[in-house]
Amino acid sequence: MSARRWPGDSPEIARPDKQANQDAKPALAGVKVLDLTHFEAGTSATETLAWLGADVVKVERPDGGEQGRGASADIPGVDSYYFMLLNANKRSVTCNLKSEQGREILREMIAKADVFIENFGPGVIERLGFGYDEVSGINPGIIYAQIKGFAPGSPYESFPSFDMIGQATGGVMSVTGEADGRPIKPGPTLGDTGTGLHCAIGILAALYQRRATGRGQHIHVAMQDAMVNYCRIAYAAQALYGKAAERMGNQVVLGTTAPSEIYACKGGGPNDYCYIYSTRANNSHWERILKVIGREDLLDDPRFATPQSRCDHFDEVDEVIKPWIAERDKREVMETLGRAGIPAGAVFDTMELSQDPNMREREIFVTVQHPVRGAFTMPGWPVKMSASYVPITAAPLLGADNEDVYGAWLNYTPDRLAALKAEEAI
Amino acid sequence: MSARRWPGDSPEIARPDKQANQDAKPALAGVKVLDLTHFEAGTSATETLAWLGADVVKVERPDGGEQGRGASADIPGVDSYYFMLLNANKRSVTCNLKSEQGREILREMIAKADVFIENFGPGVIERLGFGYDEVSGINPGIIYAQIKGFAPGSPYESFPSFDMIGQATGGVMSVTGEADGRPIKPGPTLGDTGTGLHCAIGILAALYQRRATGRGQHIHVAMQDAMVNYCRIAYAAQALYGKAAERMGNQVVLGTTAPSEIYACKGGGPNDYCYIYSTRANNSHWERILKVIGREDLLDDPRFATPQSRCDHFDEVDEVIKPWIAERDKREVMETLGRAGIPAGAVFDTMELSQDPNMREREIFVTVQHPVRGAFTMPGWPVKMSASYVPITAAPLLGADNEDVYGAWLNYTPDRLAALKAEEAI
Repeated sequence: MSARRWPGDSPEIARPDKQANQDAKPALAGVKVLDLTHFEAGTSATETLAWLGADVVKVERPDGGEQGRGASADIPGVDSYYFMLLNANKRSVTCNLKSEQGREILREMIAKADVFIENFGPGVIERLGFGYDEVSGINPGIIYAQIKGFAPGSPYESFPSFDMIGQATGGVMSVTGEADGRPIKPGPTLGDTGTGLHCAIGILAALYQRRATGRGQHIHVAMQDAMVNYCRIAYAAQALYGKAAERMGNQVVLGTTAPSEIYACKGGGPNDYCYIYSTRANNSHWERILKVIGREDLLDDPRFATPQSRCDHFDEVDEVIKPWIAERDKREVMETLGRAGIPAGAVFDTMELSQDPNMREREIFVTVQHPVRGAFTMPGWPVKMSASYVPITAAPLLGADNEDVYGAWLNYTPDRLAALKAEEAI
Repeated sequence: MSARRWPGDSPEIARPDKQANQDAKPALAGVKVLDLTHFEAGTSATETLAWLGADVVKVERPDGGEQGRGASADIPGVDSYYFMLLNANKRSVTCNLKSEQGREILREMIAKADVFIENFGPGVIERLGFGYDEVSGINPGIIYAQIKGFAPGSPYESFPSFDMIGQATGGVMSVTGEADGRPIKPGPTLGDTGTGLHCAIGILAALYQRRATGRGQHIHVAMQDAMVNYCRIAYAAQALYGKAAERMGNQVVLGTTAPSEIYACKGGGPNDYCYIYSTRANNSHWERILKVIGREDLLDDPRFATPQSRCDHFDEVDEVIKPWIAERDKREVMETLGRAGIPAGAVFDTMELSQDPNMREREIFVTVQHPVRGAFTMPGWPVKMSASYVPITAAPLLGADNEDVYGAWLNYTPDRLAALKAEEAI
């Protein structure tokens, strides 16, 4: 344990990641997932299930596999980093759904599976003959999940969508950006991974329910709809102020406090900032800040006597604290304030996070060994569970598991697989 | 069904929300959740469980209840909209954890519960005597979940955190904002609700696992860590370009295409924009755009012949499409392009979304009846499940369910409850 500890830390706080019985079966051991997803919204849902221990089998077309393999690829023919980030801990089989033999193989797989999931464009899976009625007709116990840009029944149900279309139409962009600026798309892929996580929640709840009922069900999540759930607090602002929630820069949509902003730290780089927040409920954070920066002379200043009066003197609050911050780098600002019980967060960039020894040790970042690319460091699963641990493994090469999966699920022999391959069915 | 339908819509696409057997038990029927959460990161997790059918009992201090009730309140003594958004479908009991009698009541409740969840500041729950060891000692089957700003074992484990601190320290702000601007906090509360959804996933997986093992476990999620999961694609950019991912305005972090931007539409309001995206994989979207806007004369223009050449002529692409867009309002732009198979999304604001008849009909927004405020319209649960339907009900008043819950869980009589109230234990 190399992490520094501060005075006042509670050594008795339990760490589920360290208690993990790494020999025990993980939470979803034995759950078979037929994964017909591509790109990110669907693959993020199934990667979540894989990281909880499910056996996720990607079903891919023989010529090139799912589209994410080649998306933003730097080396022709080598799976992209994008693909590797979203398909760890899965297995891959090839199956040509344009051939009747391929469709028959998928029907046999459906009979053995617990979960079927897809995020093709609107209507595609139905045209392939694997709509909900067909699939549940083969296996009434199956949980059938779909992710689309827009919901069935929406006027936009037939429209194509990608991450940014979900973020635009779900309200996310309308509340992100400078107060006097244009709408901005958050960098995180909320439309994709943010919707995939909602789908994973639905699938997990349905798996639990099935243990009682024995029956599967149909789950549907639309990107536009899931975005509304992330923007909930904006609807409190709308109710309070009687108008659509507005862009607020770095302020809280429900109302400003002071300080509550990012402040420039020593260094001057694009991310040399620290967010400092103080509560609107009382003076506790403000008084601690004055103490830390050696300005207790201002404790009785009427301009800063209440949360409201600090808001009214927003710029003067800034003048008080900025000099102290500007002399220190963002880590020192965060650590000094945080130790004093003041909410403070350095703006860390992706390199700082992925190279942080503590984040590595806690497996928030992991290094996998890919058969072609070699070592690759990527985000792991952030939820720590004391009785469910899954070591992260690299995304599969296309069709790497044909023999294992078709052998174990369907008892296909190597000879039969060779014949199916010759006939371009797999 | 009042939604417009476009030519080419597939009428056979199944709608799980319409298939719901509203008499069937929902997915988590019978699951008892002891909810010691406050504000948003924790309450969003338990509201998710409530919307899947769990019996979520908020355990609140008798004097004012959890802090969210008074946060951003517009009327003193009346629960805030913020609270109502995050505590629908829950029940409320009062319990004074500063009295030994109150702590004994909580121990009795723990013996009956399936899930225990809290998001107090670091070390608080342990000091109250309800750390993981104590709680699992009472009930080895319990699933014990914690949400904090920073993970146990992090150098920042004792630091306070709020939504924006999670977004700053988890990398979200470093990749959000204009390319030449400062870091921006996305408007959606990714640090809070985004972490709460991760916690819900852990709890659901543990509930499923418990049906096999009979044992509970300890779950922990930190806001900083969960943020990394939403920023995954930025780590592909880092791997490709060998440096920390940068802010890109409205562009995709992995690389630009043209068009791929918001464009100003007729109206000139703060959200009168439409995002238009075109794939980098081929020319299909671009060719459709030219056809829609009547500029087929440019189909053979060498400046726009490939995705790369359109990127190289980004401004000239804009000049071609902007005049057509500027003459139309954002809905017409979205609908015309969407029907033609081009990814396009109007930037909708919170008022437009919450007043949209189709979003209301599909219960993405619902109107609840609150005992004090009356009708309140708020986001509902976006995941549609054909065999699990939970009508949204208003957040509970403080202690509204003391009789029902303490009666049913612990067989307390009204007389006993009156005595406990007199002694300030509940």
